Amino acid sequence: MVKLVLVRHGQSTWNLENRFTGWTDVDLTERGVQEAHEAAAALKEGGYPFDLAFTSVLKRAIRTLWIVLDDMDLMWIPVHRSWKLNERHYGALQGLNKKDTAAKYGLEQVQIWRRSYDIPPDPLAESDPRHPCHDPRYKDVPKGQLPATESLKITLERVLPYWHDEIVPVLREGRKVLIAAHGNSIRALVKYLDHVSDDRITELNIPTGIPLVYELDENLKARAHYYLADEEKVKAATASVASQLTAGRSGR
Amino acid sequence: MVKLVLVRHGQSTWNLENRFTGWTDVDLTERGVQEAHEAAAALKEGGYPFDLAFTSVLKRAIRTLWIVLDDMDLMWIPVHRSWKLNERHYGALQGLNKKDTAAKYGLEQVQIWRRSYDIPPDPLAESDPRHPCHDPRYKDVPKGQLPATESLKITLERVLPYWHDEIVPVLREGRKVLIAAHGNSIRALVKYLDHVSDDRITELNIPTGIPLVYELDENLKARAHYYLADEEKVKAATASVASQLTAGRSGR
Repeated sequence: MVKLVLVRHGQSTWNLENRFTGWTDVDLTERGVQEAHEAAAALKEGGYPFDLAFTSVLKRAIRTLWIVLDDMDLMWIPVHRSWKLNERHYGALQGLNKKDTAAKYGLEQVQIWRRSYDIPPDPLAESDPRHPCHDPRYKDVPKGQLPATESLKITLERVLPYWHDEIVPVLREGRKVLIAAHGNSIRALVKYLDHVSDDRITELNIPTGIPLVYELDENLKARAHYYLADEEKVKAATASVASQLTAGRSGR
Repeated sequence: MVKLVLVRHGQSTWNLENRFTGWTDVDLTERGVQEAHEAAAALKEGGYPFDLAFTSVLKRAIRTLWIVLDDMDLMWIPVHRSWKLNERHYGALQGLNKKDTAAKYGLEQVQIWRRSYDIPPDPLAESDPRHPCHDPRYKDVPKGQLPATESLKITLERVLPYWHDEIVPVLREGRKVLIAAHGNSIRALVKYLDHVSDDRITELNIPTGIPLVYELDENLKARAHYYLADEEKVKAATASVASQLTAGRSGR
C-alpha cells in the first residue's frame, strides 16, 4: 500500500482582493503561511516521511511546500516543479474581480464559466501581457501546449499526463510523495483517483492547508482517502472554501 | 560567453559555537540569513536571470538558495540538490570544538588536517551515529561512495564528477546557472576552474554571501572571475573568514 499526500495552498493575496487568480503568481497572505504551518504540524504528528515532492511553478504552492519541508526538516528532499500542476488558467478573467467580471460578461455567463466542467472563459490574446508566452518560466513549454484559457476539463488533460509520466513511476518505486498544488489541479487528481463524474467534480471543494491522504493499492487504485484533521476542522475549511466561491472569492 | 555564479552560504549556528560542522545539518544564524539577502540584492542589481540552480542537501546552503530565489522572484526555477555539493566531511572531528579537538588529537595534528590538501581526519566508524549511512538523505547513495571522512582532495573527487555530469551539460545548453554551496565544495570548483595548485587552494578563502561570478568561454574555460561586491566588502569578508579559521571557527 502506497500513501500519497496532496496539500492545497492556503489563502493568497488575491483571495483577499476578490480577484480571479489562475496563473497569476501572487503570494500567500499571513493566513496562508499559517495554514502551511498547520499542514506541516498535521503531517509531523501523522509521521509522514516523504521521499520527494511535486509542485507547480507558482509561488503560493511553492511557498506552501517550502514551509512544510522546513517544518518537517525535509528541505533536502528532491522537489519537482511543473506548470502542469498549476492552477486552472482563467483566461481573460485573470486579474478581474467579481464585480468587473459580472459587469463585463453578465453574471449568468460568469457562473457558467465557474461551474461548468468544460466551458473555458474567453482566451487571452497572445498580445495580452497576461498570456503565458510572455513569462520566462514557460519559455521551454512548446507553444502549442501553453493555454490561453482553461476549463477544468482542459486542466485535467494536462495534469493527468504529468501524473502518469512523472508521479506514477516514483510511486511504483515505493517512494513517498507529497504534492503541493492548487484547487483545480488537485481536483483533477481527485476526479481521476476517485472516478468523480464531470457534474460532481465542480461541486467538490478541497479545503486549503489540510493534507489529503490517498491510500493506493499495488495498481495505484485509490482504496481510501482522508484528511489529516478532525472532522470539525475539515467541515469548517470546506465550508469556508465553498462560501468564498459563493461570494465570488476565487482562490482558483 | 557563459556566466556561472557561485554563492557560499553565510554564518551557521555552529560557526558561533566554534565547532567543526562538515555534513552536520545546522541552520543559518540571523546573520547568515542577512548575508543571503545581501547576495540576492547584489545579483538583482547585477541583473542575473538564472535558469536553474544547484545546491547541496544541507539546509544552510538550501536556505541560502531559497532566500536568493525568493528575493529575486525566481522560486519557480528548477533546483537540483546533491550530496556531491556538500561541505567537506570532517570525519571524527564533526561536532567537536577547537578545544575538544586539540585536547583529543593535539594542536599540531589538527592544523595538519585543516591545512593539508590530502590528509583527512580520522574516519567515523559505521556504528557512529554521525556516519552518513544512518541519515535517510543518503539512503540512495551507493555505500561505497559515502565518505566517513574527507580531505579537500577527496571532496574535489566527488564534486568534479558532479560538475562534469550534471552542471556542464546545462552550461553547454547556454543555461544560466546558480550554485549555492559550501566553502570546500566551492573551493573544489575554483581549484578546477582556475588551475590552483594543491598547496595554494587550502589558503584560498571564499567569502560568505558574496556572489562569485565566473565568465566561461565556449569550451567552459574560465576567462575571468569577480565578486559582486565592492573591493572593501570582499576584503573584509575574506579577512573575516580567514580569521575564523585562525580562531578555529570552521564554517566548513
